[in-house]
Amino acid sequence: MKTDGSAWQLKVRCLGISTHWHPVAFLRQDAGVARSEGLATQSRIELVAGEKVVTVTLNMVTDHFVGEGEIGLSDAAVSALKVRDGDLIAVRHAAAIDSLHHVRGKLYGHQLGRQAIQEIVDDIVAGRYSDIMLAAFVTACAGRRLDVREIADLTAAMVQSGQRMHWEQPMVVDKHCLGGLPGNRTTPIVVAIVAACGLTMPKSSSRAITSPAGTADTLETMMPVNLDDTAMRSVVERCGACMVWGGAMALAPADDVLIRVERALDIDSEGQMIASVLSKKIAAGSTHVLIDLPVGPTAKVRSEAEAKHLAGLLVEVGRELGLVVRTHVSDGSQPVGYGIGPALEARDVLAVLRQQAAAPEDLRSRALDLAGLILEMGGVSGPGLGRHKAEEVLQSGQALDRFMAIAQAQGGFHEPPRAVYRHEIRAERDGVVSFINNRFLSRLAKLSGAPADPEAGIDFRARLGMRVSRGDLLYTLHAASPGALSYALEFLALHPLEVKVEGEFV
Amino acid sequence: MKTDGSAWQLKVRCLGISTHWHPVAFLRQDAGVARSEGLATQSRIELVAGEKVVTVTLNMVTDHFVGEGEIGLSDAAVSALKVRDGDLIAVRHAAAIDSLHHVRGKLYGHQLGRQAIQEIVDDIVAGRYSDIMLAAFVTACAGRRLDVREIADLTAAMVQSGQRMHWEQPMVVDKHCLGGLPGNRTTPIVVAIVAACGLTMPKSSSRAITSPAGTADTLETMMPVNLDDTAMRSVVERCGACMVWGGAMALAPADDVLIRVERALDIDSEGQMIASVLSKKIAAGSTHVLIDLPVGPTAKVRSEAEAKHLAGLLVEVGRELGLVVRTHVSDGSQPVGYGIGPALEARDVLAVLRQQAAAPEDLRSRALDLAGLILEMGGVSGPGLGRHKAEEVLQSGQALDRFMAIAQAQGGFHEPPRAVYRHEIRAERDGVVSFINNRFLSRLAKLSGAPADPEAGIDFRARLGMRVSRGDLLYTLHAASPGALSYALEFLALHPLEVKVEGEFV
Repeated sequence: MKTDGSAWQLKVRCLGISTHWHPVAFLRQDAGVARSEGLATQSRIELVAGEKVVTVTLNMVTDHFVGEGEIGLSDAAVSALKVRDGDLIAVRHAAAIDSLHHVRGKLYGHQLGRQAIQEIVDDIVAGRYSDIMLAAFVTACAGRRLDVREIADLTAAMVQSGQRMHWEQPMVVDKHCLGGLPGNRTTPIVVAIVAACGLTMPKSSSRAITSPAGTADTLETMMPVNLDDTAMRSVVERCGACMVWGGAMALAPADDVLIRVERALDIDSEGQMIASVLSKKIAAGSTHVLIDLPVGPTAKVRSEAEAKHLAGLLVEVGRELGLVVRTHVSDGSQPVGYGIGPALEARDVLAVLRQQAAAPEDLRSRALDLAGLILEMGGVSGPGLGRHKAEEVLQSGQALDRFMAIAQAQGGFHEPPRAVYRHEIRAERDGVVSFINNRFLSRLAKLSGAPADPEAGIDFRARLGMRVSRGDLLYTLHAASPGALSYALEFLALHPLEVKVEGEFV
Repeated sequence: MKTDGSAWQLKVRCLGISTHWHPVAFLRQDAGVARSEGLATQSRIELVAGEKVVTVTLNMVTDHFVGEGEIGLSDAAVSALKVRDGDLIAVRHAAAIDSLHHVRGKLYGHQLGRQAIQEIVDDIVAGRYSDIMLAAFVTACAGRRLDVREIADLTAAMVQSGQRMHWEQPMVVDKHCLGGLPGNRTTPIVVAIVAACGLTMPKSSSRAITSPAGTADTLETMMPVNLDDTAMRSVVERCGACMVWGGAMALAPADDVLIRVERALDIDSEGQMIASVLSKKIAAGSTHVLIDLPVGPTAKVRSEAEAKHLAGLLVEVGRELGLVVRTHVSDGSQPVGYGIGPALEARDVLAVLRQQAAAPEDLRSRALDLAGLILEMGGVSGPGLGRHKAEEVLQSGQALDRFMAIAQAQGGFHEPPRAVYRHEIRAERDGVVSFINNRFLSRLAKLSGAPADPEAGIDFRARLGMRVSRGDLLYTLHAASPGALSYALEFLALHPLEVKVEGEFV
């Protein structure tokens, strides 16, 4: 039924189809609106329900499961429009997306202006970009194609696109690790130490982008992390800190859309990575941020030169936007701790906090380095004295107490799950561990099911330079299903030399 | 039901959902295979039916329209697998796409090697790339990021990816126009003239990429153009030429996939454009190709310098691959003929062939230029004498006869359709037409419904420098539906100055 010159009204039919984030509508080929408006499969159309406007991709159907005068909606479209079966919604052509022409300009080497970037980010947040358009934007900015000005503008636009938190405290500290190093899960330990020393650290973390676990994935195996703004503030008030998933707070929401596309492509664009990190920090109200840059041949940052380049950009973009950024370059040559995957990494974190003899020393030491630097940035300890203070707080049990208090405030602590399906990989000869490919380990952990299956991943026991005898355990694959385990083993069979044991005298 | 260690068998349910080219499968959230294999919405999975293997995107459903033990398929999946309701097919994880790592390398500025390009093209043709991955590849190659070596390798890989035609004749001529100029529909006229002179010209044309009509779209309003190989050969045997749609012949099929993505982004990547043009020519068995490069401020090629750059690449890549390429730079400052849109352009072509007084002189003259150059390349006329010969053949009626013979051989001639919905745009003042934005006209014609609606587009009567009085007709919008017409008018209202009339003394 047509109501005015520009929109048709159709009855909603919720189809119960989960197309993930991507809203999709289904319309009969013989529908009047399709003929009259020239709609076809893959048309981008706007659905209007009251104040809500959502851009969806159209699929034409020939079958009977959408009736005459009806429009079928996927789950994402239903929840975005907040409609039910039988509700009337209006259908119209999606407006042309003018900001795409800035993306095309970038492809041809033009600099993106502040206004152009804001328009792109606004269109992305409004859901107007299709997958193809999102991938073009991500790709056009990848490599080193964004300069400092563009990165600062992108960061500001991302902050602008979502909520922004304000704190009463004049100083709010935070940390971030520029990923790529499996198992490097220092955050929960650092937060616990820093908060125990009286600093304010409302930590929000991301889920995995291209890695087998993000800090939020790891934390979620021990406590609820999907807190809303009110709940989060109440935790910070009580404990001086929190450990939540950033995505639940609608901070820099454009970032989450871009991350999904980067994940599908398995790329991190330098400029978008910096904007992603700093926009979340600024939106979360941080004033002082420590950024850890692990460097290694198979880490995300591969050389000292690259680390220096990134550190320069981070500090400079931070300065442009009024954020104090300090960087810390660390060893990224091999995994940290034993676990690679949400629950396995959580076990390492707990072992350190609980001061168990089996706790991974490398994870403990890294967490103390970072906590110490933050204590110095925050004026708790003088220059060079932070690490000692951090160690004291860990040994005294104050850090563990603070961690448990935070978990309690967020909804309760639970032990991380254990995988049912496991497979041990043992040394095939006597020798020395001479090579470890971090990227391979990440991929293997992902093929085992991490991070979607929290218990999946790798319990990695080998270390560079470690002497092993034939039959010694190198690592154990953990999986939630036999399918995932055999998938990982197939991949392993194709790439047998990414963790290498060589004879000492060869 | 599980049959072996790596694949599950499910019963096909054809859902009658048209997702365009993109094959999609629907599976119940509680299906055993989903739980066991860790499948989720957006998972890429492989479906196997006998010898056919198709990669599809998975959507999980909660509703009842896919039963237990069933898998629902979109039309594209059904036709790719050649299955019916109730057939059993196997389901497994899609293999990791190794060629994506070459795409990532390109993003970081590495040159693509021959083997890398072949692997990417093979994966694209096999349907293994999702929209996101396709867009990343297109974008990574856009701008001027492919060098001659890469373009030649991409061209060869595209030829390799599909069928290749062979002709008995030692010389097979062809032409191509590097688009961007609305209404420049010389091909049918050139083919008719050249074939009437005894040269072999098995012309296959593309549909529109970013323009409101491709040659194939225009031809289809007058004759069938979807011919298979046998039918096409029979036409060429009888008439010395044909005018068909290239996509039906599976020549360089990777190109059609890439073109779909370029269309969604409204970009033409230089390297992919050259590979697209030359791969189709080589796969079609051409030996000599004339390429028309219209140059103008709003044409696809905007400057003489750019035309020279492109001409150099075209000749060089052609030489690498054993193809004789000649280029011709022409005026691209304004539309050619009156029509912009499939049927409207077809009317212009027929007017020229029929030598009607109202035929557009510019279209006639351009067609004669190009036909003359091909007659010279083909040795029919000496240097400088081709155009005169071409004019003779047009005036004698031989060209029209040959055109009609070809249409007859392809399945029969019919007059192009006329649009029911029209709107005239008239001059708002006395003056001179001082500016015409070709890109604006293309967009306006597309918003009117071209090329999906063949009768839609613009009948454009203004010319640069033309004197007009207030109320004189500038152009007429044609549309197949009131919705499309009002959509175009809305856009026009937002951009009123793209065809400008200025007072003579202002």
